[in-house]
Amino acid sequence: MDRQELIGNIARKRSFLCVGLDSDPLKLPACVRADASSMAEAMLEFNKNIIDAVAPYCVAFKPNTAFYEAMGAEGWQVLAQTVEYIRANYPDQFIIADAKRGDIGNTSALYARAFFEDMNVDALTVAPYMGSDSVKPFLGHDGKWVILLALTSNPGSHDFQFTESVGLPLYARVLRTAQEWAGKDEMMFVVGATQGETFADIRRHAPEHFLLVPGVGAQGGDLSTVCRYGMTEECGLLVNSSRGIIFASKETDYAQAAAQAAKTLSEEMAAMLNQYSKI
Amino acid sequence: MDRQELIGNIARKRSFLCVGLDSDPLKLPACVRADASSMAEAMLEFNKNIIDAVAPYCVAFKPNTAFYEAMGAEGWQVLAQTVEYIRANYPDQFIIADAKRGDIGNTSALYARAFFEDMNVDALTVAPYMGSDSVKPFLGHDGKWVILLALTSNPGSHDFQFTESVGLPLYARVLRTAQEWAGKDEMMFVVGATQGETFADIRRHAPEHFLLVPGVGAQGGDLSTVCRYGMTEECGLLVNSSRGIIFASKETDYAQAAAQAAKTLSEEMAAMLNQYSKI
Repeated sequence: MDRQELIGNIARKRSFLCVGLDSDPLKLPACVRADASSMAEAMLEFNKNIIDAVAPYCVAFKPNTAFYEAMGAEGWQVLAQTVEYIRANYPDQFIIADAKRGDIGNTSALYARAFFEDMNVDALTVAPYMGSDSVKPFLGHDGKWVILLALTSNPGSHDFQFTESVGLPLYARVLRTAQEWAGKDEMMFVVGATQGETFADIRRHAPEHFLLVPGVGAQGGDLSTVCRYGMTEECGLLVNSSRGIIFASKETDYAQAAAQAAKTLSEEMAAMLNQYSKI
Repeated sequence: MDRQELIGNIARKRSFLCVGLDSDPLKLPACVRADASSMAEAMLEFNKNIIDAVAPYCVAFKPNTAFYEAMGAEGWQVLAQTVEYIRANYPDQFIIADAKRGDIGNTSALYARAFFEDMNVDALTVAPYMGSDSVKPFLGHDGKWVILLALTSNPGSHDFQFTESVGLPLYARVLRTAQEWAGKDEMMFVVGATQGETFADIRRHAPEHFLLVPGVGAQGGDLSTVCRYGMTEECGLLVNSSRGIIFASKETDYAQAAAQAAKTLSEEMAAMLNQYSKI
C-alpha cells in the first residue's frame, strides 16, 4: 500500500487506529478455547472474530509475531492465515508484522523475503542497532514499508535511546541517519505514546514521516498529547492499541466489546483529525 | 548449560568453535535437494549430516532463525527438529538460537518461553536498543543465557555502535549497562571478528564475559587478532563460522568438506588456547 492510499483510507474512515493482534493463546477468552479443537484453531477463530468486529473502525492491523512464535510451527501458520484473512476480506487494511527484526545484510534480505513476499504484509518493524546494511534490504520493495524503532514505549527506552550521541539523543540520531536511507514513502518510525511531549522533538527531526505509536491504553500513553505534538497536516500517525481492544472483555461478548472499544477510540481520533490535520 | 560445563567442554575438545547452521534452503547442495521430497526435508537432512560431520570439532551450534522463518511454518518445524537432533545425539553441545529478539517486557517474556522452554535452546541472541525491560525477561532461566548484541560484525555497526554515548562509544555503554542486569554466568556479548583490535577495548569493559564472535571466514574477520585481544584465561570466546564450514563444498562431499573446514579451524583454535588461555 502506498502513502497516498493510506492517507486516503485515514481521511475516509476518520480513524488512524491500528489494532494490535497480540493474541496471546494463554489469554484468550475461555469460551473461544472451549469451542476449539486446538489452541491454534482457537487463536485463528479469535482473530477472525476480532478483525470482523473492529475493521470498520481501524485502518491497520499489527500482529506481534512473538505471540505466534510462542506456539511454534502451528503459531506461524496461524499468523499466515490471519494475514490471508485480512487480505481477502479487508483489502483496504494496512498490515504490519511487528517482528523487530534486523541482522547482517544477507540475513535481513531473507527476512524481507519471508515477510514481504511469502507472508505479503505491508510493513515490518525493524531494530536500528546494527545500522544501514541491516535495514536497507527491507527497502525498495514496491508498496512495502520499514518501520524503524526510534523511541519505544517501554521504561527501558531510557537506558540507551536518550543517551547523547554526537550532540543529539540517540533516538534523534537514528531518525536523522535513517532519513539518509529512505524517504517518507517507504519508512515510518516507532515512537511510543508514553513519550508525551517528546513528540515535538521527534517532529523537529522527522517532520513528515508516519509514526507508528504503540503504548496507548494498557501502557498508559495519552492520545491527545500524541496528536497535539505529533500529528501533521496529513495525519502522519498510526496509533496502535492491542490489549485495550482485543481483550476488552474475556466473556462471550468479546467481539462486541472489542468493536465498542475500537469505536470509542476512533471517535476520539476523528475529533483529533478535525482539530490538527487538513484531511 | 552452565559456565563451568562450557569451559570444561572447550578445555577437553581444545576448540571454541561454534558452527552456524545458516542453512539457506536456496543454497543447499543440489544432491541434497534432489534426494528430498520437500525443501523442509532437504534442510533437515542437510543439517543432520553437517552436525554429525562437525560435532567432534565444535562446542556449539548456532542456527540463525531467519533461514528457517524464510520457509514459514515448515521451516520453524525444521528448526525445532534440528535442535532436538543435537540434544539427542550431542548433549555436550551448546545451542544458540540466533534470533536477535527484544521487545517490551510482556512480549520478551513470551519469546523467552518459546525459545528456552518449548525449543529448549541454551542461549538466545537479543538486541539491546529497547533497554532493560526488553532484556530482563530472558534472565533467570536456570542454565540459559542471553547473548546481547554489543559490537556487530557488519559495516552498519559504524552507524550507531561507535557514536559517543556519555563519554563512551555506544557499544561500551551497552557493555557497562548490561553488566548491571546480569553477570558472567548468564550473559554473553556479540562482538564481530571484523572489529579487530577493538577487542582490547571490549575486554576493558567486559573482562570476563564470554563473547560470541561471528564474522570469521566469509565476512573477513581474523581469528588470531580476535584471540590476541579477546581471549581470557578461561578462553571466554565462542567463535562462529557459518558459510565457510557448511557450504565448504556444494557437491556430494559437502559433509566431509565441512568436517575438514571445522577440523582446520579447531586446530588453529587449539594453538590459540595453548598460547593465550590457562585451560
